[in-house]
Amino acid sequence: MTRIRRAPTLVIAPDSFKGSLDAPAVSAAIARGMARVWPNADIRICPMADGGEGTLDAVLSSGTGPGQQAGTARRSCTVTGAGGARKGAAYGLLSALDGPTAVIETAQIVGITDAAGMAVDVAHRSTRGVGELVRALLDDGVRRFMIGLGGSSTNDGGAGMLAALGLRLRDPAGGEVTPTPQGLAALARVDADGLDPRLGECTITILSDVDNPLCGPHGATATFGPQKGVREDAIAAFDATLARYARITEAAVGREAATNLGAGAAGGLGFALQLVGAMPRAGAEVVADLVGLDAALQGADWLITGEGRSDVQTLGGKAPFVVARRARAAGVAPTLLSGAVDPAALPDLGRVFAGCFALPAGPMTLAECIERAETLLADRAEQIARLWAAARGE
Amino acid sequence: MTRIRRAPTLVIAPDSFKGSLDAPAVSAAIARGMARVWPNADIRICPMADGGEGTLDAVLSSGTGPGQQAGTARRSCTVTGAGGARKGAAYGLLSALDGPTAVIETAQIVGITDAAGMAVDVAHRSTRGVGELVRALLDDGVRRFMIGLGGSSTNDGGAGMLAALGLRLRDPAGGEVTPTPQGLAALARVDADGLDPRLGECTITILSDVDNPLCGPHGATATFGPQKGVREDAIAAFDATLARYARITEAAVGREAATNLGAGAAGGLGFALQLVGAMPRAGAEVVADLVGLDAALQGADWLITGEGRSDVQTLGGKAPFVVARRARAAGVAPTLLSGAVDPAALPDLGRVFAGCFALPAGPMTLAECIERAETLLADRAEQIARLWAAARGE
Repeated sequence: MTRIRRAPTLVIAPDSFKGSLDAPAVSAAIARGMARVWPNADIRICPMADGGEGTLDAVLSSGTGPGQQAGTARRSCTVTGAGGARKGAAYGLLSALDGPTAVIETAQIVGITDAAGMAVDVAHRSTRGVGELVRALLDDGVRRFMIGLGGSSTNDGGAGMLAALGLRLRDPAGGEVTPTPQGLAALARVDADGLDPRLGECTITILSDVDNPLCGPHGATATFGPQKGVREDAIAAFDATLARYARITEAAVGREAATNLGAGAAGGLGFALQLVGAMPRAGAEVVADLVGLDAALQGADWLITGEGRSDVQTLGGKAPFVVARRARAAGVAPTLLSGAVDPAALPDLGRVFAGCFALPAGPMTLAECIERAETLLADRAEQIARLWAAARGE
Repeated sequence: MTRIRRAPTLVIAPDSFKGSLDAPAVSAAIARGMARVWPNADIRICPMADGGEGTLDAVLSSGTGPGQQAGTARRSCTVTGAGGARKGAAYGLLSALDGPTAVIETAQIVGITDAAGMAVDVAHRSTRGVGELVRALLDDGVRRFMIGLGGSSTNDGGAGMLAALGLRLRDPAGGEVTPTPQGLAALARVDADGLDPRLGECTITILSDVDNPLCGPHGATATFGPQKGVREDAIAAFDATLARYARITEAAVGREAATNLGAGAAGGLGFALQLVGAMPRAGAEVVADLVGLDAALQGADWLITGEGRSDVQTLGGKAPFVVARRARAAGVAPTLLSGAVDPAALPDLGRVFAGCFALPAGPMTLAECIERAETLLADRAEQIARLWAAARGE
């Protein structure tokens, strides 16, 4: 006697596998493997991100399941890159009855993987392009912004963005100060009168997975400066410049933000955005909302999430953890399928996930895992699906 | 509301992970991982083997579950090793109401992992020790034998065993011929009159996973000779010697066996045993019987099997395949947990197993897999158990 069961409803909500596959590609590979076991499964794809690189791709490609955005569009705007060259930057527009929301990924403008920007010394990089894009969108009537802060190459405290939005930075002689770490060293005063007044009409949400303050031993420069090219012996000077810039700017704007959680995100862009009223939220939580995760989980049987490498930091609010928590709340078992899983973290991960799995099917180098990631993902997904089906007596 | 379920009944029946862990150790590691999820699980351990190295360990250590042997004892006997040195060789005695059965693992006597034997050229190695052990057991009244043939270092056509049991090998001048490939080159005639008459009272079962004939392009020498040290340019001569030895011996004994399935196992020991009436069986099937697999499967919820590396050959009668077939017949889902799984074989393996899994949790070398095999096994077992439990709504 064959038991007849309805095909299962599956939610696939992985982060990108950084350096290998973006989240939509990861999702598609997992879906392919699952479909080998259940050709008629209801597969709901919710690609995830944490506010950093890939956030835009995740939000714009989130599928056609329930709870997805009614209308999403990918647009592009020419802005100034981190190193000063003009470049096209993608952003997203989510339409709703009460007006559009722009989704901006800082990494699209001043990303650490942008070779042209990285070719210029960090002392000369600026977030000016982020402010240019915000201003252009203000001109288009946009008043709601979601700004993802991860993966930037800049360390300018967001001075470039503020300058592009009208803040005037002056040296002791009254001359204009370039909004870069090098330029800010000569900063004497700022004039906030020219700051775009439309910012006061805006709701700006910061997507970040960083809670560092702007300055000090856990600040932007000390924590993230070196990976952007700040020499160890220059950290103190960069940090002092940002601290003075913050004091002067806070006084001029009439608001404090330098010690806020996340002020140190994106080289201090988190500070500058909070200074003009932005509210920081955990990036993965916002993305989960944008891709309609909770709605996708309604009536679902099983959820698969994952990331390039899972370790104890996964439980500190990374996308798979956020996804798992929402799945549990909806009564759906969340299984982890990552590129690699740190064995030392398994006891902790095991309490959150209904099984933790990794790509390799045998001894394999990292390069092989990356090169064959899609095939391996589909294969692993198929095998955990076979086990799932067997456990349910299918 | 918490659903109360009985703890599951699990059957753990892996082969050894060759070069890493024996089957009892593999079983114990898997059981440890499963117990982390279900501390009260009824875990039934049936270590598997295919007649080669590890067969004796599997049979003697098979646990205390239902269907296990009433009495098993590990014994040892001093015999001649493949290279001529005396050595202790372990064997098993299974007691039953109608008399004992001896379990002999050829690899314990003339094993390819035995350094002393391998230090002697293959042309001078002999299976004499196997015959010595059989004769000693005949003296003890044993009349039932299970002889595992895998993992031998010899290529003597079983002449050594037959000589130890009374077959006389003569050169043209009537002198005694040494029962080695080198010695057999001078063979002119054999005298079977001295062959131990008690062999006629015996039931001898051969455990093998090899169906090669004694000679020819698929024979013992061509197929397995090189890994034992037969040089490529010497294969034809070794093969011709065995062919002539077989013709002469078959004529003297009055029975043919050289073209039987499995005559080429263990360098032709399969031929010699069949010549004295032994019946070949698939090694894994016999071991499955000896460890009481079918009884263990009664009322079980799930079975885990595995081996060092799974590929398309797994489906050619290897232990995990035999185990899976019996599990399916008993209505129990069989899941594969091996050291590595060949991706190319997954489509075929996926039809047999309810999920195929491997040791690594990320990029990892073979040496790391081997070194950390027990930890990795317990971790993987735990994770597939968590998935299983989640799928059942636990």
